Amino acid sequence: MAQLNMTVGDIDGNVDKMLDVLARCEDERADVVLFPELSVTGYPPEDLLLKPGFIADNIKALNKVVRRTTSCTAIIGFTDRGLYNCACIARDGKRVGVYRKRHLPNNAVFDEARYFKEGRGGHKLWDIAGVQCGVSVCEDAWHAVDGPIARQGALGAELILNINASPYYAGRWREREEVVRARALEAGAPVVYVNQVGGQDELVFDGNSMVMGADGTLLARLPQFEEALVFVDVSLDGSGAVTPETMAPICDPDEEVYRALVTGVRDYVRKNGFTDVVIALSGGIDSSLVAAIAVDALGAEHVHGISMPSRYSSEHSKSDAAVLAEKLGIDYRTIPIEPAHAAFVEMLAPSFGERPPNITDENLQSRIRGVVNMAFTNEKGWLTLTTGNKSEMAVGYYTLYGDSAGAYGVIKDVFKTEVWRLSRFVNAKAGREIIPEAVITKPPSAELRPDQKDEDSLPPYEVLDPILEAYVEQDRTRDELLEVFDPDLVNRIVRLVDLAEHKRRQSPPGTRVSPKAFGKDRRMPITNGYRR
Amino acid sequence: MAQLNMTVGDIDGNVDKMLDVLARCEDERADVVLFPELSVTGYPPEDLLLKPGFIADNIKALNKVVRRTTSCTAIIGFTDRGLYNCACIARDGKRVGVYRKRHLPNNAVFDEARYFKEGRGGHKLWDIAGVQCGVSVCEDAWHAVDGPIARQGALGAELILNINASPYYAGRWREREEVVRARALEAGAPVVYVNQVGGQDELVFDGNSMVMGADGTLLARLPQFEEALVFVDVSLDGSGAVTPETMAPICDPDEEVYRALVTGVRDYVRKNGFTDVVIALSGGIDSSLVAAIAVDALGAEHVHGISMPSRYSSEHSKSDAAVLAEKLGIDYRTIPIEPAHAAFVEMLAPSFGERPPNITDENLQSRIRGVVNMAFTNEKGWLTLTTGNKSEMAVGYYTLYGDSAGAYGVIKDVFKTEVWRLSRFVNAKAGREIIPEAVITKPPSAELRPDQKDEDSLPPYEVLDPILEAYVEQDRTRDELLEVFDPDLVNRIVRLVDLAEHKRRQSPPGTRVSPKAFGKDRRMPITNGYRR
Repeated sequence: MAQLNMTVGDIDGNVDKMLDVLARCEDERADVVLFPELSVTGYPPEDLLLKPGFIADNIKALNKVVRRTTSCTAIIGFTDRGLYNCACIARDGKRVGVYRKRHLPNNAVFDEARYFKEGRGGHKLWDIAGVQCGVSVCEDAWHAVDGPIARQGALGAELILNINASPYYAGRWREREEVVRARALEAGAPVVYVNQVGGQDELVFDGNSMVMGADGTLLARLPQFEEALVFVDVSLDGSGAVTPETMAPICDPDEEVYRALVTGVRDYVRKNGFTDVVIALSGGIDSSLVAAIAVDALGAEHVHGISMPSRYSSEHSKSDAAVLAEKLGIDYRTIPIEPAHAAFVEMLAPSFGERPPNITDENLQSRIRGVVNMAFTNEKGWLTLTTGNKSEMAVGYYTLYGDSAGAYGVIKDVFKTEVWRLSRFVNAKAGREIIPEAVITKPPSAELRPDQKDEDSLPPYEVLDPILEAYVEQDRTRDELLEVFDPDLVNRIVRLVDLAEHKRRQSPPGTRVSPKAFGKDRRMPITNGYRR
Repeated sequence: MAQLNMTVGDIDGNVDKMLDVLARCEDERADVVLFPELSVTGYPPEDLLLKPGFIADNIKALNKVVRRTTSCTAIIGFTDRGLYNCACIARDGKRVGVYRKRHLPNNAVFDEARYFKEGRGGHKLWDIAGVQCGVSVCEDAWHAVDGPIARQGALGAELILNINASPYYAGRWREREEVVRARALEAGAPVVYVNQVGGQDELVFDGNSMVMGADGTLLARLPQFEEALVFVDVSLDGSGAVTPETMAPICDPDEEVYRALVTGVRDYVRKNGFTDVVIALSGGIDSSLVAAIAVDALGAEHVHGISMPSRYSSEHSKSDAAVLAEKLGIDYRTIPIEPAHAAFVEMLAPSFGERPPNITDENLQSRIRGVVNMAFTNEKGWLTLTTGNKSEMAVGYYTLYGDSAGAYGVIKDVFKTEVWRLSRFVNAKAGREIIPEAVITKPPSAELRPDQKDEDSLPPYEVLDPILEAYVEQDRTRDELLEVFDPDLVNRIVRLVDLAEHKRRQSPPGTRVSPKAFGKDRRMPITNGYRR
């Protein structure tokens, strides 16, 4: 079971990984090895698939892997001409056959119907080391009763091999396990399920590969979020034995989301050729959590914090940021934004006249900080990490080109109520206070005007988040929410969410940890007259 | 033929438009009226379609229109439960039937397989005023030989009614006309083709509805980019007469693109509830063209220009911007950015040390201008229009959160070589110099350092644009381009295009005028190891 972290488009690198595994398989005298779905190109290759030259390169690369196979049968994911999302079955340097994926997901974050045609026709089995095996690809396993795996079972499959690129969201492993269990029972044969691992733009793949027994008993499980090459013997005599015992634990819910976030930022930074990141540390909980995640992802020596106090920043904010940086052991500097703030006010005064500071002035401060962050990106090559959470992203409680300016939105799919939970997890994991308790308990504030609090503009997050979850993740309408929540609040929140669509469209990608994240998962029109 | 400008999501507004048309149809004693595809919801409603409440609202709205039909049969676009993209055939206050779209486009800018199921089963005809009519929806007309229209012809259709939401790109009308001609010949019956009109985020619909004779003679054509309600008598005796004569001219190529751009920005601004825009006028050709388009879209009194000279701005830039503003008759002000520039340099000096101005400094200037523009958006409610062209968007020759900061990228799908052509068109159309000749002929420069010219960093645009067209629009690979263009240039340009993906992902929407625009049309991974 080759649970690998592929890089989209890096055909040579992916091939090298597979060749290394093939050599190990030969040493271990394995009978069969499963690579993830589209292992040659990484998943999802998106519009690279529209380049005929890319398809040709992927086939050349596949052939290179095929030529290097030995008596160990390899199940390799690739794109065949046509276009089909395929599993190649190869051994002894030759193709034994090709299975074409039949069910193409085109919902949520998936666009497979944009690229691929569906495999059709009768099923067949492949003889691998004397065992009749059914082969299928990812979504094929999610179709019940008369789906590909049940049909392969009906043909007499003794073992089902299923290769995957199944993205993470919180608790996804549980659904997967149920689905694979149902298929094993239908087919009356064990299922070997191999998933890829690692981050690709918005997506994280959590691995969690497994062997499910014919009787629905989970026989083996690989770790979450880590590469793993695991050799197991699967007994086909009905005893359900897998040796050696391979049962990686499942993370607790907070740890699981946290590791997904760490994986997302680590792979985004590294796979794009960067090493270091810069974070605006406000002394608030969001930037504190992001800094902790970045340290776990990249190492403290690669994380740089900047405190950028304005005329409205409180003393505790400045000290909280400094304390956090010290506890994390990261590079830290303070750059007061007053000179730029004063300059802009002066430049704009002839146009805006005499008036008290307003929302324009608040956004100005946030944008000045964005400019400073980006100057470090330009000067030092440190990617800017943004710190907005999902609650803020939803209602637009942030400044476009200000605090949302940056390369990667680390916690953009994490509701504020979860931010608190994850912050406590950070401290519990460390066994000491990393994120100061004061930061966790103080009332959230953007500090863009005197004595500002989030709750001046928004309901408490414990009230806000359930409304957002219903409106954004569950696709309810305003009219439907009016029956459940406070009407004034619903009217206000729904309007805010709709109006922020243009801001979200220009925000950086960030790790998806929910079943519906902002990004390719939720494709709402900006121009949108729907008000019900 | 009701060639209407619908607004996505504005179900009430769209219904009101249709009811007005129904009243006119009664007055005119029309036999049948065609509304565009998904006329109840506007096209494309995107993920609004995932809300069950939205589907229910659209069906209620459809029923309201159906109840108001008279003896004139109405062909109304809506989404049926299920989900299906449908045409409802209604008269005398009742549904006569429903046709389900069979071919769902899921390429380019289309995501219909994300939402809809395909209509299946045998075809039937509808008796409308004693004439046997076939009904179909948009993409159905693009399937030849055994497609829906040919089958309806084989059933004996005397008239084909096809409702559309077919987006514009340059010269698209010609392809459409050929396709509709082929269908009319196959069916042996005239085809009435009705398209929607107007802008929706990235898309512009150009109308260009038509009647095609059974012998392939174009019998009637409605105007491009304008709403039109046109009543025609179509003779079914084979004579091919359509009365009254209705043959709107097709625009010349430059005028056509220009009107698409005007439509795109006008509808984006107005349908989002705004009236005014602000544009950073550099004295260069891009911002000059954008200002001219904005004036045609919104009126000179709604367009505001700001000149923001830096320490590196030339005298001619400042005077060229002022001359342009005067010729366009727009509000104009000058805000030198030196105070903010000096402030940032001072703030960053402790971190960056003594060094000559570099790329950080160049981006700083651009971002200061972005901050000023956005201050006007916040303070006055003027949407910022960005001025980057497709050549710059492609190679990343712009500053993220700087000149790319704004609500709408007016010419983001227009190559620089086309910018020159369109600028000359602006002057020719006006019959006088609107964009100063000096602006058109001077060498392009970002003026972010002394004596900077675009050609210091990029090849001449006449050399660059064909490489970009091959790489971006034609999906060629680097290896393929190496065989055609200068290798050093190819290597440099391809790398620049790939590296700019993260910047493009955060850029505002803008009008698509090519067969492949940046935006939902080209979905490339940011993390992308493909180098061939």
